[in-house]
Amino acid sequence: MNVPTVAVADVPPDAPLLDVRETDEWTAGHATRWILRGTRSNERYSTREEKQSLTATQPQLGRTEATCAALIPIRKSEAWWDLPQDERRHIFEECSSHIAIGAKYLPAIARRLYHCRDLETAEPFDFITWFEFAPSSTSAFDELLATLRASLEWSYVEREVEIRLERDYKSRAGCNPAPLKNLG
Amino acid sequence: MNVPTVAVADVPPDAPLLDVRETDEWTAGHATRWILRGTRSNERYSTREEKQSLTATQPQLGRTEATCAALIPIRKSEAWWDLPQDERRHIFEECSSHIAIGAKYLPAIARRLYHCRDLETAEPFDFITWFEFAPSSTSAFDELLATLRASLEWSYVEREVEIRLERDYKSRAGCNPAPLKNLG
Repeated sequence: MNVPTVAVADVPPDAPLLDVRETDEWTAGHATRWILRGTRSNERYSTREEKQSLTATQPQLGRTEATCAALIPIRKSEAWWDLPQDERRHIFEECSSHIAIGAKYLPAIARRLYHCRDLETAEPFDFITWFEFAPSSTSAFDELLATLRASLEWSYVEREVEIRLERDYKSRAGCNPAPLKNLG
Repeated sequence: MNVPTVAVADVPPDAPLLDVRETDEWTAGHATRWILRGTRSNERYSTREEKQSLTATQPQLGRTEATCAALIPIRKSEAWWDLPQDERRHIFEECSSHIAIGAKYLPAIARRLYHCRDLETAEPFDFITWFEFAPSSTSAFDELLATLRASLEWSYVEREVEIRLERDYKSRAGCNPAPLKNLG
């Protein structure tokens, strides 16, 4: 593997907070309720032009003002994975404007994608998607999600779980970054 | 993971044979010298037309007459992985005819590709490529390799190791399939 594994875990009941780390050495503690793993990987669909445009406008993770976050693990259907590359690309962008829709909300909404499908341990999802934004961008984020979910691509999404979070600066003084509180 | 992990191991010195298994539960025994892991995954470059053509002509693994095999783990450069999808596809097929060259040797040479790059354990290669053919197709296989290695795509191959093998019917009577002897 050439990039760190991310592990996302919910650690209740004594600390009902979600922890996100990019590391390949994290194992679950005794209080961990669930853990999701994924790796960063090469891009699968974007063209040179799309990649350059995104790179120029997308913000870093961890911005001070971006105190809201969303974790959305996604599994696509076998029908999706059975499609050849050209047809997946066609549905992804020419039909569903996935890249163009995401670009419309830059630089307000920072994103990162992790791949889980090809790990050697069985994972319940194909992707972990991660978003960070300021509270003032919450309605923009809602709109982004609604637009993607109305696309043809989403007819191949078999399962997704939406977890909204915010930085919890009160719970553990001195943590940097502050832990993430699950908003349910 | 939705497909089995393959583990390929060299198990000397008492049994200088290579073992290949599709399983996600294989751990190295005390005599194992090295082990490579990979997973089957979705196709990354082929179009509908290319996929249909390959599916119609490619043989199964494990044919009785295919007593020769080759294991070639490959690592590509960071420059390759940094390319956007459209440029990787262009180099892979429009410039290098990777799919067309492979198709020329069907059904004589059976192939399987395993992906290692996105496993959570660090692997020394990005791919494990596996080939099976009858002894009478050895020169065709040599030609296939030479043609691929002369392509533009191969300028992005940073490391590869070629291991030629043959089924060793004498070494362990009753094994099915017979183990593979490393020809050096």
